[in-house]
This record gives sequence, structure tokens and C-alpha cells, in this order.
Amino acid sequence: MNYCSTCGANVGLQVPPGDNRPRHVCHNCHTIHYVNPRMVVGTVCLGKDGVLLCRRGIEPRLGYWTVPAGFLELGETTEAGAIRETYEEAVATVAIDQLIGIYSVPQLSQVHIFYLAHLLSPVFRAGEETLEAAMVRYEDIPWDSIAFPSVTWALQESKRSF
Amino acid sequence: MNYCSTCGANVGLQVPPGDNRPRHVCHNCHTIHYVNPRMVVGTVCLGKDGVLLCRRGIEPRLGYWTVPAGFLELGETTEAGAIRETYEEAVATVAIDQLIGIYSVPQLSQVHIFYLAHLLSPVFRAGEETLEAAMVRYEDIPWDSIAFPSVTWALQESKRSF
Repeated sequence: MNYCSTCGANVGLQVPPGDNRPRHVCHNCHTIHYVNPRMVVGTVCLGKDGVLLCRRGIEPRLGYWTVPAGFLELGETTEAGAIRETYEEAVATVAIDQLIGIYSVPQLSQVHIFYLAHLLSPVFRAGEETLEAAMVRYEDIPWDSIAFPSVTWALQESKRSF
Repeated sequence: MNYCSTCGANVGLQVPPGDNRPRHVCHNCHTIHYVNPRMVVGTVCLGKDGVLLCRRGIEPRLGYWTVPAGFLELGETTEAGAIRETYEEAVATVAIDQLIGIYSVPQLSQVHIFYLAHLLSPVFRAGEETLEAAMVRYEDIPWDSIAFPSVTWALQESKRSF
């Protein structure tokens, strides 16, 4: 961060009064520009034929398998974000059943939140950023081709629900 | 957001290719400036005399009671953030026991995450942003003077642990 997004002046790192870590502070308007971790929300969506998996059509991890998930947007609940992402990635309309858990990825400043969900209709297909969407039985999950450790964890945490 | 924090040029709202909502995009360097919800992490910290509550010394809700909580920082796990905030607000050293739950506040674009915790030593006192820290029995919680709805919810969710 080099410039103030409010007034366009230069920013510099300094510890604001009452704070204990350096922030980008504007030299002109003195706005403090906090930067915080982001949330990824997604679903482990179970149907009678298994779990809904998506093969990624974009980087990172293009071609690897994931559950539908993506960044939480402003004004969303975590549940609403997970439902939206499931629709965007797998064109599937789902309902949330329960929280699976929270998986922190501090090296990326991300927190991944996964929910158990179920399909409200049997319809699904690959969304724009997905190469392929499929219902996969637990014993057929391609563990060696899962895109991210948090996805492996969420699928393993959900095993008893299959 | 008016200016690009990377190059200082003007930004404008536009829907980037492959996206479905307006973002602030730099007219010069084309950086997309995503803005996402923030996490607040905190603890319901139980001891033999009740739960650790803090009376807020800063706005918003100055003078009202809360559990120790605050914004998750870059590079932190949610558990580490909750432990840090408990130290900053109540000068208490705690260990996490389990997740209580996730409370979305979409109108503020915040997600609040609370953990059950316990004191690792009986020492605590008011931190810099706290007027008063106290161990309070469940039956003595000042429900009418709690700072935020998510704190009321977290305390109620924890009742069976008292």
C-alpha cells in the first residue's frame, strides 16, 4: 500500500495511538487503513449419490477438485455466502444443515468456514469457473487431486454424515 | 474509495471480467481493490467464579459490558486472535477449549467468532481499552448492559458450560 485510497496522498507505516502494530496511515488526512484476513465460505453438499465436487477451472490449483467455496462478500452472512458460492460454482441450489467448522490459514491470512448442506433440487452443472461438477461417493473422493488442505479437512470432518 | 492504493490514480466502480458485482478498479494500473467482511474473535472465558467480562473503555458502547473480543489480524488463526484479544482487553492468559459458534452481522459486514476458554492463571485486570474486568456468575450477568447482541448470544450459548 503506497497511497491513501481516501485522499490520494502518500501513506506510511506507523503505530497509531492506542494500537500495538504498524498500520498504513495517511500523511495528509490521517486515515488509518486497516487490512484484515478474509473469509472463504463453502459447502460440503450431500446428496443420495455422494458429495458435490467441482473441478477448478481457474488458478490457483486449476484442474484440481474442491467443494464449492469462495470469498465472503460485504453484507452477507456466512451461510448466505456459502449458498451463493455453491450456486456460482456448481449451479446448485442448496440449504445449509450445520456448521462443519473453521479452518484458519494464517500464512495466507484466510479463514475457511464450511457448512454441511443438501441439494434442494437434483440439478447441478459446472459454473463459469468450474470445469466439471460431479456427485462423488465418499469412497471415490480423489484425495490425491484435492485442491486445498482445508477441503480435505472439511470432507474428512463430514465423513460420518455420508 | 477514491484513489488506487497501489499507484495513486483514480479508481472507478466496474464489474471486472468474470465477476458479477462492481469493484473499485484503478483506471491506470487496473488493480482490482476487493473489500471483504472482517472477523471479530473473542472468548467466553470461564473460571470458578463465573465468566470474564469487560466494561468497555472505548466507543462504540463505552461503559457497556462485553466479553474480550476484537478484530482478527493478518497472519493469525482465529484461536490465536481470540487469545490475544483476551490478553489485550483483560490481561488474562487463557487456553481455548472449543468453538461456541459464528454470529454474522451482515449490516456491518462483520462475522463474530467466539470460543469457550479458561484462565491459565487467576490473574486478570482491565486492559488499556477496558474500564473494569470482572469474573461474573451467570445469574449476575448484566443482560441489560451488554454491549452487542453477539455477546448476549455467545453468553447464552455458553450457559450449559457454567
